[in-house]
Amino acid sequence: MPKNERESRGRAKSPKGPQKSPAGRADSGSDSLAALGEFGLISELVKELGDAASDVLLPVGDDAALWDPKGQALATADALMEGVHFRVDWGGPEDLGFKAVSVNVSDVAAMGGRPDLALVVLGVKPETDPSWLRGLYRGMAEACRRYGMKVGGGDTFLSERIVISMTVLGTPSPSGSVKRAGARIGDTLFVTGTLGDAAAGLAYLKARQLEGRLKGKTRKASRGASSKLMATGLRRLLRPTARLDEGRAAASAGASAMIDISDGLAADALHLADASGVGIRLRGSSIPIGAGARAAEGLLGLAPERLALSGGEDYELLIAISPDRSEHIVSALEHTGTPLTAVGEVVPADQGCFLEAEGVRTALNEIGGFDHFRRG
Amino acid sequence: MPKNERESRGRAKSPKGPQKSPAGRADSGSDSLAALGEFGLISELVKELGDAASDVLLPVGDDAALWDPKGQALATADALMEGVHFRVDWGGPEDLGFKAVSVNVSDVAAMGGRPDLALVVLGVKPETDPSWLRGLYRGMAEACRRYGMKVGGGDTFLSERIVISMTVLGTPSPSGSVKRAGARIGDTLFVTGTLGDAAAGLAYLKARQLEGRLKGKTRKASRGASSKLMATGLRRLLRPTARLDEGRAAASAGASAMIDISDGLAADALHLADASGVGIRLRGSSIPIGAGARAAEGLLGLAPERLALSGGEDYELLIAISPDRSEHIVSALEHTGTPLTAVGEVVPADQGCFLEAEGVRTALNEIGGFDHFRRG
Repeated sequence: MPKNERESRGRAKSPKGPQKSPAGRADSGSDSLAALGEFGLISELVKELGDAASDVLLPVGDDAALWDPKGQALATADALMEGVHFRVDWGGPEDLGFKAVSVNVSDVAAMGGRPDLALVVLGVKPETDPSWLRGLYRGMAEACRRYGMKVGGGDTFLSERIVISMTVLGTPSPSGSVKRAGARIGDTLFVTGTLGDAAAGLAYLKARQLEGRLKGKTRKASRGASSKLMATGLRRLLRPTARLDEGRAAASAGASAMIDISDGLAADALHLADASGVGIRLRGSSIPIGAGARAAEGLLGLAPERLALSGGEDYELLIAISPDRSEHIVSALEHTGTPLTAVGEVVPADQGCFLEAEGVRTALNEIGGFDHFRRG
Repeated sequence: MPKNERESRGRAKSPKGPQKSPAGRADSGSDSLAALGEFGLISELVKELGDAASDVLLPVGDDAALWDPKGQALATADALMEGVHFRVDWGGPEDLGFKAVSVNVSDVAAMGGRPDLALVVLGVKPETDPSWLRGLYRGMAEACRRYGMKVGGGDTFLSERIVISMTVLGTPSPSGSVKRAGARIGDTLFVTGTLGDAAAGLAYLKARQLEGRLKGKTRKASRGASSKLMATGLRRLLRPTARLDEGRAAASAGASAMIDISDGLAADALHLADASGVGIRLRGSSIPIGAGARAAEGLLGLAPERLALSGGEDYELLIAISPDRSEHIVSALEHTGTPLTAVGEVVPADQGCFLEAEGVRTALNEIGGFDHFRRG
């Protein structure tokens, strides 16, 4: 049973409390968040944890925590916050509830596990319509049914913005959990499904917000064929599905490393390479680009390849697997009906991580992806 | 790997997105949050979950979710949000980190379990000083060491307010988990430690905010003996400890029901009575009032009994146990050094839930406690 302070305190003026080490101080020095970056900060914070950081089965920082009281269990947590991760006028609450579950299940999928239980911590605004919240939970329930899991508890509190913080607990693959750190030189890199659609959907919503300048353009487009393709982008942005069966199939097929593509293919490939201590070569011509991303070219003037490489929120899987097991994964994924595309291979670390397109090599860290603390 | 939308979108004006069922609509009808209340809303939301609500071992709504993939595991989640649950100028980040762990461990303690792993979802402001965050994590680490647990992962994102959403996973008591629903007529009700101190600390901080009117009063008091007692209140508010050993001892001694006192003794006694389908009689003269709450009488003119009954955030335990096992629990708690006080007993449901003080009976629901959605 949680207990909140009175909300009224949050609105009081100029308190004179003990002020040992206040947050909220702007710091443009080398110790600022902008200088550290998200992953730098995490690394810093893990250091502060010292022996309180779990080393049970996996170090802090992987997609999900393995936890072994008797058997093994997977646990992962992700939050969606209004104004940061979503806007309430983007879509219905059902989609948002579905997405909140999917983004967590995606982390379980990326280890080859299956989800069992979700805990939901929900911050709501005083004026929130309960029917909107019911819709949110309907969407969660639908996702839970789809993924074969349950909601097992949580907490609610009053907030100035809607916050949905969720934890998902699950069971690892019987073949063992697939980590980011297992990629070996020579492994083939596969991607499930297609990339760039969610980023195209986001670009479409942003363009629509620039009413004056783009109103005519998007309206005209809404009567065209491209609007149908764009709908793919919106659907994938607002109601993504986790590649659960695909992750389990990849684990059974003997994948050596896996990560879900949430920050963009380039950024997540770098995460996998860093964890595994290897280099990565991606072939630009092989990257599977979604219909929504392709539509964004004509509709919004955006390069589909860029959306696919750095857009993020695809919730597809990037899988490293030994070439002699490629047949296994191809046949395992066939049962799911999800396309599987070889996009590159694992190379020695000294070759670095790069994209090869039309004979030109571009370092993956120049393509970029999403880092919360470096942007905004 | 979570992925956030670009923060900039949260600041765009007047988007024309699909608006199926917007949140943010004021609703003063019977379906409003104010009309539903917190627990009414939870009940509504659980209905929406349908078969996605866990019925594995416990229904949604208890302190922690039991989860049984092979062995059994406990899972609980609670969030602390800036402006709602805390202010950064109230104290140091170490205390806040310690508190974030404690409020979750308290839920595990209330079932007689032990905590194993915490997942931390952290929302930070762009201008947050990394050293403040390090302090936060140091406090978490200290709490984890105290409670014998680890931090196993989580998520960070950029937010307009600091949010610390935590999940704690744990192992149930070998004697079985103690639920809210097990109280039987005739059981004695015990309370660990003392009550009202955190509420006194909160009242002190609020009074200090009303600079003009109360400055003189609190300054004068700060030179007096009462300020030392008041420090107890601040310490318990800002850095509460969970009654972990006490909860485990109570479970071993055969407690029939247990709940942590976070919303206030009156409110949490009602929760326990509701879940067990019984009535409750509390003896006003027996309630153990803390030194901070007593100090609040002279310093702030607040009734200590009221703080103890409805103040909340004590994180003590309310334990129901059969009278023939009272000796067991008394001797079990002696080892912890924490006072244990009999404050009443479980009565038939038709007698209701009430406080008896100086011959007068007051219904517990007239005393009240904390409900996020009814106040503010």
